[in-house]
Amino acid sequence: MAKKQPITPRDKDYSKWYTDIITVAELADYSPVKGCMVIRPYGYALWEAIQRELDGKIKATGHQNAYFPMFIPKSFLEKEAEHVEGFAKECAIVTHHRLTVDEKNKKLIADPSAKLEEELIVRPTSETIINSMYAKWVQSYRDLPILINQWANVVRWEMRTRLFLRTAEFLWQEGHTVHATEEEAEEETLKMLEVYRQLLEDFMAIPVIQGRKTEKEKFAGALRTYTVEAMMQDRKALQAGTSHNLGQNFAKAFEIRYQDKDGKLQYAWQTSWGVSTRLIGALIMTHSDDRGLVLPPRLAPIQVVFVPIWKQDKEKELVLKGAKELKESLVPSIRTHLDTRDQMTVGAKFFEWEKKGVPIRIEIGPRDMKEEKCVLVRRDSGEKIFVCQKEAPGKIQELLEEIQTALFERAKKFREENTTKIDSWKEFESYFEAKGGFALCHHCGDRECEEAIQEKTKVTIRCIPLDNPKEKGKCIYCGKESGERVVFAQSY
Amino acid sequence: MAKKQPITPRDKDYSKWYTDIITVAELADYSPVKGCMVIRPYGYALWEAIQRELDGKIKATGHQNAYFPMFIPKSFLEKEAEHVEGFAKECAIVTHHRLTVDEKNKKLIADPSAKLEEELIVRPTSETIINSMYAKWVQSYRDLPILINQWANVVRWEMRTRLFLRTAEFLWQEGHTVHATEEEAEEETLKMLEVYRQLLEDFMAIPVIQGRKTEKEKFAGALRTYTVEAMMQDRKALQAGTSHNLGQNFAKAFEIRYQDKDGKLQYAWQTSWGVSTRLIGALIMTHSDDRGLVLPPRLAPIQVVFVPIWKQDKEKELVLKGAKELKESLVPSIRTHLDTRDQMTVGAKFFEWEKKGVPIRIEIGPRDMKEEKCVLVRRDSGEKIFVCQKEAPGKIQELLEEIQTALFERAKKFREENTTKIDSWKEFESYFEAKGGFALCHHCGDRECEEAIQEKTKVTIRCIPLDNPKEKGKCIYCGKESGERVVFAQSY
Repeated sequence: MAKKQPITPRDKDYSKWYTDIITVAELADYSPVKGCMVIRPYGYALWEAIQRELDGKIKATGHQNAYFPMFIPKSFLEKEAEHVEGFAKECAIVTHHRLTVDEKNKKLIADPSAKLEEELIVRPTSETIINSMYAKWVQSYRDLPILINQWANVVRWEMRTRLFLRTAEFLWQEGHTVHATEEEAEEETLKMLEVYRQLLEDFMAIPVIQGRKTEKEKFAGALRTYTVEAMMQDRKALQAGTSHNLGQNFAKAFEIRYQDKDGKLQYAWQTSWGVSTRLIGALIMTHSDDRGLVLPPRLAPIQVVFVPIWKQDKEKELVLKGAKELKESLVPSIRTHLDTRDQMTVGAKFFEWEKKGVPIRIEIGPRDMKEEKCVLVRRDSGEKIFVCQKEAPGKIQELLEEIQTALFERAKKFREENTTKIDSWKEFESYFEAKGGFALCHHCGDRECEEAIQEKTKVTIRCIPLDNPKEKGKCIYCGKESGERVVFAQSY
Repeated sequence: MAKKQPITPRDKDYSKWYTDIITVAELADYSPVKGCMVIRPYGYALWEAIQRELDGKIKATGHQNAYFPMFIPKSFLEKEAEHVEGFAKECAIVTHHRLTVDEKNKKLIADPSAKLEEELIVRPTSETIINSMYAKWVQSYRDLPILINQWANVVRWEMRTRLFLRTAEFLWQEGHTVHATEEEAEEETLKMLEVYRQLLEDFMAIPVIQGRKTEKEKFAGALRTYTVEAMMQDRKALQAGTSHNLGQNFAKAFEIRYQDKDGKLQYAWQTSWGVSTRLIGALIMTHSDDRGLVLPPRLAPIQVVFVPIWKQDKEKELVLKGAKELKESLVPSIRTHLDTRDQMTVGAKFFEWEKKGVPIRIEIGPRDMKEEKCVLVRRDSGEKIFVCQKEAPGKIQELLEEIQTALFERAKKFREENTTKIDSWKEFESYFEAKGGFALCHHCGDRECEEAIQEKTKVTIRCIPLDNPKEKGKCIYCGKESGERVVFAQSY
């Protein structure tokens, strides 16, 4: 299964490097279905780690999981005008419910007699179908808040796809909540944004900027969209998660009303929020290098891999015993793997675990056994650390924390080095014609102005940072007055 | 949200009783999409408990999770002839990938210019799409075995649907493995059947018969299908899980070949196996009673619910403190909930937790606090047990195990009481015209004979039990020779 394939260096072809990493680490594969990918076991293990961490946080903030149908009646999409306008055009449409054998050529065809009365759309997101249920479930203020999350597959028919970043089908979670007041909905929206920040920064070691999307970039149908934006190694921005305050837009479209304490009927306030398998793309592009994947320890399915080294059979017995003992002396919460494969050279094993991004490799040979030591090799820096076996358990635990922090700090430093304040249009253009990065600039807030900038430079406003200092200035493009800087960047 | 709704007694209308339980326990709801259901948070928590338990067992037996596209090119279904013949006719067919606005009436329509070249089928099961990838991944004997599982949604267009038991879309896991030899594939098939037995019997307290399906009832494309069959309270059989030895059928259709140690190309041997959200239907129909859902403790999202009783505010403070202390004194692995709701009567609380099947309810009032005791109420038997608070933690732990065993034993006794050997056709007919149950009868093994029986009586052969004693006899219907008895029953 594993083939030797060189990794294209980032400098040479960043985009090729990205897909090479996915191939050599066996994270995903192209499928025979246009635009759809196969998530292979090692890639899926990354998703499971993210799921486990995030699901815990979603439940700890009072939400429950549920499951809604993947099919949405076409007419539902027409109910919230802005939503369908901005969203649901490129999608998978189910028109028939039976196959039959064509008498002419004996091939399968969609049975003409099994045409659906109303076409069904495979969910691109579930606001409409979920809200049709909420309209039924919500009657009184006592029924609020509703705090529900769903783990599901969704489909958005994309013409140009890239593994993990943009595929027709992808996996995600989508939270959908209902509240009695606007304040509560806004609080929820920001609470989940903060959950996403914690997931990205503390677990995945990916630094993010929390901010608000402009009117142009917000979710179709939302009052306000918040986002966490990360910088990839090609200095482009990646939107890693979004949290929407939907206001009363969907409540009005779907008639979600509750009787308040005074017996009056009120429209409810809503939010929705989601992250997807795209996070795996962000993970790859934040930490990996020209030798393969690099995983932050907290997320890594295997944190420590033992590679015993032997030539003769009696050495094998000795080093395997030593490696096993060392493995068992570690804290049980550390995820380890002992590579006992016979038919593979030590070099090939090193190479494989390096490509798969395992944070620490432990080498242990006959001489190490004699000297009661072993070698720890850091995946992030390549540093080799010689320790005596007795001290290894403590050192490994320390090192895992150190690597986690180092990866975060390295990514943060990279972002800071590639973020700059720009105050003239000329400078703006040459910045993005050269290397690019995040540009902090004033903007007037007009949609047309934003569109003009995008058309000229492919650069968009990624967000208006939440912790933005107020500062008077003039729009980078049109020169109108502005009260704060926004983050401009090219993006995925 | 919660409405008072009486539960139809089983005796009166079994089918109505079943849906009443689902409604009052808030497990699922009908959706606006024909044949599709919404799994509500409490129902989804049951699925999560089953998933957690089964996923652990799947991984412990060496399998890894992965994810494959939900869409299958139509032509893939034609590759394995038996498979498409027996299977994929009623399905959701995607024909277009874009919506557009109809100029005439301003409504959304499937864009005629976005018709797919080849229609896509929403997976009814994933053998074909997964095997197309395996053909690429498998080259050498070194690549084997492949042991992959997928948690996913699937669609089978059903005309007559019932919540959890038969819906157009449902959730399941499907394992798909590839092996070098027939023996290994057979071993895997039976290993996973045993995993299902353990899940059903030890975790869900549902006794099952492990057996082999007849040629007529086996999976389309399989060499042999094994099943775990359970008896519901209406004495019908429910197929709770299946495990298929696929032989080389799919390997030949999809060209899955490996080079063996001698360098010769060999077709691989395969298995697939799955259980679905239908298990929740089995759970409901095995244990529940006319007062609501009954959950086995190992599966129950809440195992112990505390309902403090107070009239005055100062009593409230006292009993809440007592209940909290008792709650904290339990082993942390016990899943508890303290019902502190103010606006609800104690009776209404009792009623709600009873409907939701929580195994133990603990009542604690002001007098209990004075006497340092509390009342434990068993959901399965209704028995009230008065214990002093000090002894409660030990008693609760014991009781949870007792209830788990009692539910299993009760279900097993019920099955045994409703299983009988029958040796004459007349008796067979009158048995199934009356109450019915499991009938152990001789059968010749001919497909036509089996079909004739089904046509006459709606009764099918559920399985040929694995531990069947050999015994000579004559076919219940046609009188031909037979070497063992099989299990006949009506089924879901």
